[in-house]
Order: sequence, then C-alpha cells, then structure tokens
Amino acid sequence: MQDVFALQCPIPVQEYPHVLLAHGGGGRLMHQLIEKMFLPTFGGEALHQRHDAAQLTVQGARLAFTTDSFVVNPLFFPGGDIGSLAVYGTVNDLVMAGARPLYLSVGFILEEGLPMETLWRIVQSMRAAADRAGVQVVTGDTKVVERGKGDGVFINTSGIGVVEHHRVIAPGQVRPGDVVLLSGDIGRHGIAIMAVREGLAFETAIESDSAPLVEPVLALLEAGVKVHCLRDLTRGGLASAVIEVAEAAGVNVHLDEARIPVSEAVRGACEILGLDPLYVANEGRFVAFVAEEDADRALDILRRHPLTEGAVAIGRVREEPRGMVTLTSAIGATRILDMLSGEQLPRIC
Amino acid sequence: MQDVFALQCPIPVQEYPHVLLAHGGGGRLMHQLIEKMFLPTFGGEALHQRHDAAQLTVQGARLAFTTDSFVVNPLFFPGGDIGSLAVYGTVNDLVMAGARPLYLSVGFILEEGLPMETLWRIVQSMRAAADRAGVQVVTGDTKVVERGKGDGVFINTSGIGVVEHHRVIAPGQVRPGDVVLLSGDIGRHGIAIMAVREGLAFETAIESDSAPLVEPVLALLEAGVKVHCLRDLTRGGLASAVIEVAEAAGVNVHLDEARIPVSEAVRGACEILGLDPLYVANEGRFVAFVAEEDADRALDILRRHPLTEGAVAIGRVREEPRGMVTLTSAIGATRILDMLSGEQLPRIC
Repeated sequence: MQDVFALQCPIPVQEYPHVLLAHGGGGRLMHQLIEKMFLPTFGGEALHQRHDAAQLTVQGARLAFTTDSFVVNPLFFPGGDIGSLAVYGTVNDLVMAGARPLYLSVGFILEEGLPMETLWRIVQSMRAAADRAGVQVVTGDTKVVERGKGDGVFINTSGIGVVEHHRVIAPGQVRPGDVVLLSGDIGRHGIAIMAVREGLAFETAIESDSAPLVEPVLALLEAGVKVHCLRDLTRGGLASAVIEVAEAAGVNVHLDEARIPVSEAVRGACEILGLDPLYVANEGRFVAFVAEEDADRALDILRRHPLTEGAVAIGRVREEPRGMVTLTSAIGATRILDMLSGEQLPRIC
Repeated sequence: MQDVFALQCPIPVQEYPHVLLAHGGGGRLMHQLIEKMFLPTFGGEALHQRHDAAQLTVQGARLAFTTDSFVVNPLFFPGGDIGSLAVYGTVNDLVMAGARPLYLSVGFILEEGLPMETLWRIVQSMRAAADRAGVQVVTGDTKVVERGKGDGVFINTSGIGVVEHHRVIAPGQVRPGDVVLLSGDIGRHGIAIMAVREGLAFETAIESDSAPLVEPVLALLEAGVKVHCLRDLTRGGLASAVIEVAEAAGVNVHLDEARIPVSEAVRGACEILGLDPLYVANEGRFVAFVAEEDADRALDILRRHPLTEGAVAIGRVREEPRGMVTLTSAIGATRILDMLSGEQLPRIC
C-alpha cells in the first residue's frame, strides 16, 4: 500500500496550525476544509454533488444518504432540544435532496456524569420528533467519555431517504431567470439559542424554528413544480446557503432585502447583539430555486402548509456576476454578500 | 401531541442517577440502557432484531444500515488509528448482517486546538481503510467544540450495505448442534490500546487486530455455507458477544477454553494487568454460528484468507441451560460466563 501519511497537509499549517471553532461554523473556513481536505481525499461522484445528502442507486433503488452531528449548547432551548434538532436536521437534509426520509440511525456520545433523567428527556423528544417527521430510528450506538472529555450529550444522526420522482435537484440545475423562494422568517433558531446561552430576556420570547420540512417540500414535488435546487438554512444562515448555491451553480443570485421576513423580536435582538439576521442560523427554513413559470404556484402550495405559510419570493437568478450573491438593501443600495469565516456564534446545532 | 416528558425514566435513577463510563462499555449496564430505554422508546422491527445492523427493504432493494461512534484514546496505536478503526468498525457491522458494505458517512466532532496535521493523518488513514474495505465515503459533516469540551477527535461513521443472498443471519437462527467458529486469536486490540495508554512495554510489540472482515465472510456466504449468525468481537470481547447471542437465541453455547487462541504476548500482558482475555476488546475478529454439517468446509474457506487463517472451532450450541454460555477450562472445570457490567477499560473504540 502507498504510504498514506506521505502527502502534505492541504490546509496551510503555517496559517492554520490548529483546528479553530470557525472550522465548524458553516462559513469560509469550513468550506476550505471540505474543499481542500475532505473532497480530494474521499473523492467520488456523490461527494462532489455538493449536496446536503448523497444520492445513490442500490439494486435499482434511488436513495439519499446523509449524516449530521449535533453539539448544540444548551441541550434544551425555547422551541426544541438537541434530540428533536438531531432528528429534524437529518430529515431536512434528506428532504433538500428531494427525498422522502425513511430511516435514521442514532449515535450518542455521552459524558460521564450526565443526569440519567436528561438522557431520558432527550430520547423521548427524539421519538416524538421521529413520529412527527414520519421516520423510524432503526439502529444506534452509545459511547461514554470521561467527565471533562465531552459536554453532556453529542448526537449523530444519519438518514436514508428514497427519491420517488425523476427530477434532478442540485445547484447545477439552477438557471438564470429562476425565482428564489424563502419558506418563512429567518433567524429564530440562532437567536433563541443565544438568548439562553447569554441569559438575555426579550419582551417577546423567541422560539427556535426547528421543524421537519417533509410535507411542504414533498407537496411541491408531487405537484410537479420545476424545483431546481433546495437548500435548508442552518449554520451560516440564509446568506451562506445562497452563496453556496451561487458558487456551485456559477450564477448570480440577486436578493431583495426588503422582501426577506425577519420578526420584530429577532430584528431587535440582532440590533442589540450586533448580528446580521442574514447570517443567523435557522433549523426549519429553506430556500427553493424554482423555474419562473412555476413560482406563483409554488408559493401557493407552500402557503397552505403551517410551517411555510410565510413563504415569499426574495430574489432572482441572473447570469452575472457569476458565483456571487448581490443584495439590494431596503434603502436601494446594492452590495455583494460574502461568506463569513465561521458562524457568528459556535455550537448552534 | 402526547406530553413526551411525562413518562418515568425506565432506568432506576436512585441506583443510576448519572451516566457512568460502564454505560458505554458493551456490558450489562449498556444492555440495560438499550433494552429499557432505547428499544421501548424507538421500537420498531429493525431495532428488535438485535443486530449489529438494521435490515431494511427500500424500493425492493435489501439494505443493511448501521452506525458507530468512535472515541478511542489514544488516537494512534500500534496497528491502527481512530480513522481506520472508524471505517473497519462500521464495515464489520454491515458484514455481520451478511451484507456487502458499499457506502459510508463520516461525522467529525473536533476539539478546538486539534493539530491540523493530526486531522490530516486521520483523514488519509480513513481513505486508505475505505479503499481496503471496498467502500466509498459519500457524505460527511464537521463540528468543532471548544477546547476542553471534546477530546481531540470523535468520529461517527454510518454505513449502507446490500444483502445479496437469501439467508437470514440472526441470533434467532442459531440451533442446538451448531458449531461456533472463531476467526483467530483474541485480545490484541484491547491490549495494544492499553499498552500505549498505560505506557507499558512488552517483549513483543502487540498490534491491534483492527481489519475489515468483508472478504472471508462474503466467501462463506458465496460458498453457500449455512451461516446462522455472525457477531464481531468488540467491546466486551468474545465472552460478551457469545453471551448476547445465547441470550437472544435462548440456547446454551458451550465453549472449550483450550481451543480459544490467545497469543503468548496477549496472555502475558493479561496476566500482568489482571485481565481475562475472554473479555478484552477486538476489532477484527468474529464468531460464526454454522450448521454442523458445514463447519469443516467453513473452516477451510476461512483459513484461505490471511485475516482468518487462524480460524478454529471453539464450541457448540446446546439446548440447556438456555440463554447461558458455559466454558470448560483447560483443566476441565466448567463455569458459567457472565457479562461484565462495563468494559475492562473505557474508550477502546
């Protein structure tokens, strides 16, 4: 066998001798790690699709397969907990590949000393979330690490879904003229977490948007809407998700800031905390790039589902400037949206 | 929705108010957690098969699906590292369900401050291991936690395999008269880890047995050997694996200690450390329960593969005493093998 330790580290170690929190933040540094280290090493067609889930054909069955680890802190927050988040996060990655989620695996890494009742609450929450999302937990694993070598509970969920249609849903399908739909108001998950973590109290309680997106997305597909790409807004928020698509598709995505819904409570919290809601994490929101002629019909379908009743068109795909996201602000100025190096706050999911 | 937090914790919290290291050790306490908390909550046919991997049918395709998290300490050890271990561990769980492993997901939980070169070595090792095992890494995820909230690297791998035969391989298939085959000498993985961790030096270096079991097991199946059950020997060692099968199958498994191969080096280390090799972890060994008439042929097939050239018959399945493993020692005394409460040493995988 070739000496596997002979190749030079593809991340410049003079610049980044150590892993930083930002390497897990969903921004520029995480993408560098994926593009320079993971993709060239693991290679393969499926990884290069740059999708939330890999698409595979096994014995004729068209599958989607995805994985996510959850390290959110705190474990419980308004509107959810690490257990339901771990179920919905992986379910949503499957849905974003246009698949119907079927089966989940659950891998726990527990810290010695975790109260047994806490684990029990999380496990019950996972079951309720799995029922709501229409998936079954079919296999699992439990590891325990010494006190001080973990942080309560980390959960990995991996998921298998089935693709029941013949539409290709991927950044490469996005075309100039496509309309960008956003499924609802943004930033609630990130602000809900930050409020608990920092002990902030707002006039209106802000709850996470964490939810399973199965029904509204499958409704779009079943109605034959020409969906070109789907992307859920997690780490890095709306801005990072749209930048990823624009870069992978080699198109310009132009957004109209005035059309992007942000609740008063989230807007106020962002002002106090100095955050831009475009970059704040969500766990139950997505963007859909749909063919222009189907955009109105798609909005009608989304607005019939409680989770996406606030869906709006927020922008358009254009030819130029390629690979960039531009945004016209409420006062009419246009700027380019850049990916942050990391997340505005770590361990959001 | 039903109040999901209303049910009482199924683990007696007076006795176990907190999660202990033993809850992840592969012994009695881990089984209690699985049987009392996870199985009743998540339910489902697939989980109740009590298999290393769930068996699923999707659009007519017969799949195996499994997950494992790896928290081994140290990250590098003689004969392997956390990266190759994470690949082989999940590959072997698929093989033990009689499936051909195809695809893996990889979820990293990195600790802030991990040297970038260390991550690079691990990633390269995973690629080499995936090539050796004939699987592709198709999807992944990276999270980073603050310094002191993790321990270098934790890796989850989940895997999808395909079942290409019509044999049912499960504890429920084990019958009195079946012969128990062991694929080689035991205890090397656990002792290799402990030697590094405790700074012990032995006359002969002891290397982990960590390896992918795809070829010898698929060779058995392709030859039509009546394989009733397969189980790899990981946490809890040979004893725990055989006890699990005996309990699930409701049979007696009788082992002949004199036939169980243990290298001189491992035997010596166990004596010094006060460990019983029957309970020491392995990562490239398995037992096969095969029909009596096929036992010799199965041994012949196994002995042709380098990884299993030391395969031997170590025992027999009997009717009574049901659910128990009995062992005749080298000096002729017979005793019952009990499952330990946890692993003899934590974080072995």
